[in-house]
Amino acid sequence: MTQEMIYLDNAATTPMSPLVVEAMLPYMTTHFGNPSAAYGLGLENRLAIEHARKMVAGIFNTSPDTIYFTSGGTESNNTAIKCAVRELGCKHIISSPLEHHATLHTIEYLEKKGEVRVSYVLLHDDGHVNLNSLEELLASSEEKTLVSLMHANNEIGNVLDIQRAGELCRKYGAYFHSDTVQTVGHYPISLKEIPVDFITASGHKFHGPKGSGILYVNKKLKMEPFIHGGSQERGMRAGTENLYGIIGFAAALDMATKRYEEDKKNISQLKVYMKRQLMGISVGATFNGDCSEDSLYTVLSVGFPKSDRSQNLLLDLNVKGICASGGSACSSGAGGSHVMRAIDINHNDQTTVRFSFSRYTMIRDIDVAVDAVKEILNEC
Amino acid sequence: MTQEMIYLDNAATTPMSPLVVEAMLPYMTTHFGNPSAAYGLGLENRLAIEHARKMVAGIFNTSPDTIYFTSGGTESNNTAIKCAVRELGCKHIISSPLEHHATLHTIEYLEKKGEVRVSYVLLHDDGHVNLNSLEELLASSEEKTLVSLMHANNEIGNVLDIQRAGELCRKYGAYFHSDTVQTVGHYPISLKEIPVDFITASGHKFHGPKGSGILYVNKKLKMEPFIHGGSQERGMRAGTENLYGIIGFAAALDMATKRYEEDKKNISQLKVYMKRQLMGISVGATFNGDCSEDSLYTVLSVGFPKSDRSQNLLLDLNVKGICASGGSACSSGAGGSHVMRAIDINHNDQTTVRFSFSRYTMIRDIDVAVDAVKEILNEC
Repeated sequence: MTQEMIYLDNAATTPMSPLVVEAMLPYMTTHFGNPSAAYGLGLENRLAIEHARKMVAGIFNTSPDTIYFTSGGTESNNTAIKCAVRELGCKHIISSPLEHHATLHTIEYLEKKGEVRVSYVLLHDDGHVNLNSLEELLASSEEKTLVSLMHANNEIGNVLDIQRAGELCRKYGAYFHSDTVQTVGHYPISLKEIPVDFITASGHKFHGPKGSGILYVNKKLKMEPFIHGGSQERGMRAGTENLYGIIGFAAALDMATKRYEEDKKNISQLKVYMKRQLMGISVGATFNGDCSEDSLYTVLSVGFPKSDRSQNLLLDLNVKGICASGGSACSSGAGGSHVMRAIDINHNDQTTVRFSFSRYTMIRDIDVAVDAVKEILNEC
Repeated sequence: MTQEMIYLDNAATTPMSPLVVEAMLPYMTTHFGNPSAAYGLGLENRLAIEHARKMVAGIFNTSPDTIYFTSGGTESNNTAIKCAVRELGCKHIISSPLEHHATLHTIEYLEKKGEVRVSYVLLHDDGHVNLNSLEELLASSEEKTLVSLMHANNEIGNVLDIQRAGELCRKYGAYFHSDTVQTVGHYPISLKEIPVDFITASGHKFHGPKGSGILYVNKKLKMEPFIHGGSQERGMRAGTENLYGIIGFAAALDMATKRYEEDKKNISQLKVYMKRQLMGISVGATFNGDCSEDSLYTVLSVGFPKSDRSQNLLLDLNVKGICASGGSACSSGAGGSHVMRAIDINHNDQTTVRFSFSRYTMIRDIDVAVDAVKEILNEC
């Protein structure tokens, strides 16, 4: 493409940091041994994986034997939910209609199979989980229960009070899974404090590699793996390790953690700036979900009044080289966003655009994008 | 390491081809868009994935809608077997005791859960599957049945008559899964001719990336995915695609296919050469499994008489910079090889070393390795 590109879809995926690519390259060339092999070339790679695990565990304030490397957030979420049902015996899942499809479709499948019953928490008007509703569902649950609630919503950016939700789960003896794919690498998460049984992450959401992720499993839980085979990952996730993926994941998380204060400050300012700029456009703009300073600082979900001009806004932005999405990347196209429906936003009333930011986003990118929106909506 | 390294463990993993790394790099840097995104940066990557799928399908003489990209052979084998049981309703699995743990442990798990009963075929003395035994088991099976037999054994190199096994499965109406992880990239496999329902592959077995694989599913079969979530891979394998892994997988398979005649000829000669050299050592050497020209040309499994000197042969080879393994990488250490036990080879009588070759193996590597074996066994 010769046209300049403005990338504002970092909640879908992020460009890899050049330092992450650099960390991965030796493992794609000279350091190729199978980490399960008993000779030097393999053992060195086993050590590199265990070093990566220790680094990741340290960042989460937990022990290395609770961290499992996987092929990404979706596999991790599937593992947590399916193993909670099939290995730990959960018969009831409490979740929310705002979860990512990796959670929702897994739960719906298990329900369809007759393996669990499912309850959904009520939501507040701004899309936040109603914790009273969660407590009521927990209090009245008679079966072994799994609660699955995401830490931050990928479309509207609402952040759950994960500490409080976890405490409620503990109080009522339920297992707690939180899809933390949008927050790992963007918020400090100390597993020493948060009462949670499973969290998940995807490397490509914080400038690491696609195809890499982790699953945290609370040390107290003993279960069969989701993927059976060799004894990799201490028997919990079989298959020759995606060595470069693991190295890249750890390098990206390490970098994100070290830069956290600086990145959060800068990116939050970009979000506030873009919100202000868009508030000034004459057709009006609304902001979906909780858009306060407590929300996910990387995501801004905007509603524009439906009109002939706004109808193809995303497409027109794309023509101008601006990358943004309607909802999540995963649900693009397929009948609109389940998140918008769940928070009662009618697609016939507004055109939704999710802008999402990273440490590589510049204030100029926002200016160009806002100007483009204005131009398309005929404001200029 | 300053010491020269001789790598003879290519059945465990292979070094990536520099051309494969080169093909992957753009997708690790500039081409980072989420393939599910609706703008150019994403759509281009979606196209790249579909191009890779078409290339892979063409090599297997099948249509692109039968090929699914996964995180590797183990995930693919798990998907085939678990979905055959849970989605297609198989209640009986016929397999062999020589399968890879990705198959065996999956089957054992399903049996333990009470979801299937399992029968194992009888073996001939050289470790080949007794096809009469397979037919008898098929003929007497009253439930919906899955047959799972690997194409080539990763430890002893026996190659199954996959055509004949597939025809027997068709004759008795059973589903047929073949773990083809050791043959994809090393043999031409035409799915137009072979009656099979599932085959699997791992990129890193033929100079492609770790963490990448495929699952072929016969077009006639409709089933739920193993990993639920977004609609990637036409709804059959959720999760943001491991873009560089997919590109690397296809590039490596394409290269292996183009070089097949040449590589097979050269590598076969290396195997014959090493066998001959080892036959000349005075303590004697035996060869496990079918070691004829019909066996897997990349693998040579050797038995040395047990002695004080042979006991630590692998370790001593490692000290001399020679990488080889006792059995599969995955089963190293854990109580010896289940394959050797299944073909009645007693670990107390012999020390087993698997040497395995690739297009990068040189005749000099064999000479150095054989000399090292002789030296360790005190032949020099």
